[in-house]
Amino acid sequence: MKVGFVGLGKMGLNMALNLIDDKWDIIGFDVNEKVRKFAIEKKVKVQNSLKDLLARLESRKIIFISLPSGEITNHLVDELSLNLNDGDIVIDSGNSNYHDSVKNYKKLKQKGISFLDCGTSGGIEGARYGACLMIGGDKPTFNIMEPFFKSLACESGYIYAGEAGAGHYLKMVHNGIEYGMMQAIGEGFDILQASEYKFDNEAVAEVWNHGSVIRSWLMELLVKSFTLDPKLEKIKGKVNASGEAEWTIEEALKLGVPVPIISNSLFVRNASQIEDSFTNKVVSTLRQGFGGHKTFEKDGK
Amino acid sequence: MKVGFVGLGKMGLNMALNLIDDKWDIIGFDVNEKVRKFAIEKKVKVQNSLKDLLARLESRKIIFISLPSGEITNHLVDELSLNLNDGDIVIDSGNSNYHDSVKNYKKLKQKGISFLDCGTSGGIEGARYGACLMIGGDKPTFNIMEPFFKSLACESGYIYAGEAGAGHYLKMVHNGIEYGMMQAIGEGFDILQASEYKFDNEAVAEVWNHGSVIRSWLMELLVKSFTLDPKLEKIKGKVNASGEAEWTIEEALKLGVPVPIISNSLFVRNASQIEDSFTNKVVSTLRQGFGGHKTFEKDGK
Repeated sequence: MKVGFVGLGKMGLNMALNLIDDKWDIIGFDVNEKVRKFAIEKKVKVQNSLKDLLARLESRKIIFISLPSGEITNHLVDELSLNLNDGDIVIDSGNSNYHDSVKNYKKLKQKGISFLDCGTSGGIEGARYGACLMIGGDKPTFNIMEPFFKSLACESGYIYAGEAGAGHYLKMVHNGIEYGMMQAIGEGFDILQASEYKFDNEAVAEVWNHGSVIRSWLMELLVKSFTLDPKLEKIKGKVNASGEAEWTIEEALKLGVPVPIISNSLFVRNASQIEDSFTNKVVSTLRQGFGGHKTFEKDGK
Repeated sequence: MKVGFVGLGKMGLNMALNLIDDKWDIIGFDVNEKVRKFAIEKKVKVQNSLKDLLARLESRKIIFISLPSGEITNHLVDELSLNLNDGDIVIDSGNSNYHDSVKNYKKLKQKGISFLDCGTSGGIEGARYGACLMIGGDKPTFNIMEPFFKSLACESGYIYAGEAGAGHYLKMVHNGIEYGMMQAIGEGFDILQASEYKFDNEAVAEVWNHGSVIRSWLMELLVKSFTLDPKLEKIKGKVNASGEAEWTIEEALKLGVPVPIISNSLFVRNASQIEDSFTNKVVSTLRQGFGGHKTFEKDGK
């Protein structure tokens, strides 16, 4: 089966290579010429335009999207809605907001084009050797594509999650959980680092990944980080957030589900991006106001 | 090598069986007669008193403790300090507070008795088939006992953590992390449960445990729980806390390390134990005070 791949970045390229290993006929495209060249070096068949890509596909065209979520993905779906036909299938494997995926599903449905939202987890390694896939959309379309998902996923690593949006919904919540788990691990090692005991971070992460209750892929990744940089001296304690935790919290607020751990995990990341906190300025000036406590001078200590 | 086991509860018994599989000569004791009988049924050699147990051990007596932390463990250490001799070794595998372990180490040291604190993770399954062990105390004593720990642990599942208390310190922080990870997972499934999509909890936990970033032993355990009770209708949303997270937070406060995730995780458990929250009564009455909003009647809706 021929599948057109749009987006050959870290995730897209590795998923393409994963599928090519399993003899899928993958034809790729990326707007970025450098990315296209790199994919060609990796022996992926690449076209220079979306038009050329579409021309190379069979009568039931299948387009697999691996692009940044939001405007870029939605714009591509708009373009595809003009260029695809009844019976064609579009799969969005990016981290799209599930509301967008429901809209994209409906937009394409009007033209008889099927849309599956495919939440994808497992990082680059998972993309290359077997990912975790959460798929939403019409069940019959999922059934057509099941061999493809089976091939792309690790063993037992895919699920039909439910109607349109359910795949990206699961991925959203997965990432919310991920934020909390990562933050808990971070706080634990922060204590060890500050402790009077001289702990070896790498050895601790390693032993915690063998037989303990908190053994996990995140702990395994951390062993690798500590092997390269035992006290993480080469990186700054500043963390970006790419949207899924924020959406998880929005969803929790809508549903009235309290999520103190997931929300605090996002707040900690947000705080990490602020060089000089206005909250802390307010608190500092109030503390001076009632107690005469000294404030810290700007750019001073 | 003969080892005396004090405490043959869920953890102690399973660790004893684990070691007996590896040909260790384990002689056990438990104050509870029923527990002793059960251990005998499981083919563990059991004595009826601590005195008898000690009499059966060789010249270098080794006592392995698996008891509730605090008073019970500390009391046993007091007793052992009166009945053991120079060169003997005591290992506390319980969830003791590391401050207690440092005290117990010093108390026994005065009599020439060695003390190792051995944080133990992996649950009952780990106890039976290979645990994760974090060991603190004098290195030479650890070296003597290393074959024992190697036998009790799963592969790569033990670490010499550092001087006295370091083992229980690591276990304390491990449990703090565990609280946060569990809570994040809990919140995620709470959202799924409340969502308009009809998710299958068991299937979601299962797929998240295959190839996803959040795959972990906790997720594996959750699959088993959902298999037995898909919506956890048979259990109440009330959770005990056994002390380690509280100690982790105390330690973090002492060190000035912010731990919003670990502390909130404990607070959520604490809140789960309160039938009717006084905080919420205060908020409710204030809300009525300024806005005339209705309060809920006690025992009403």
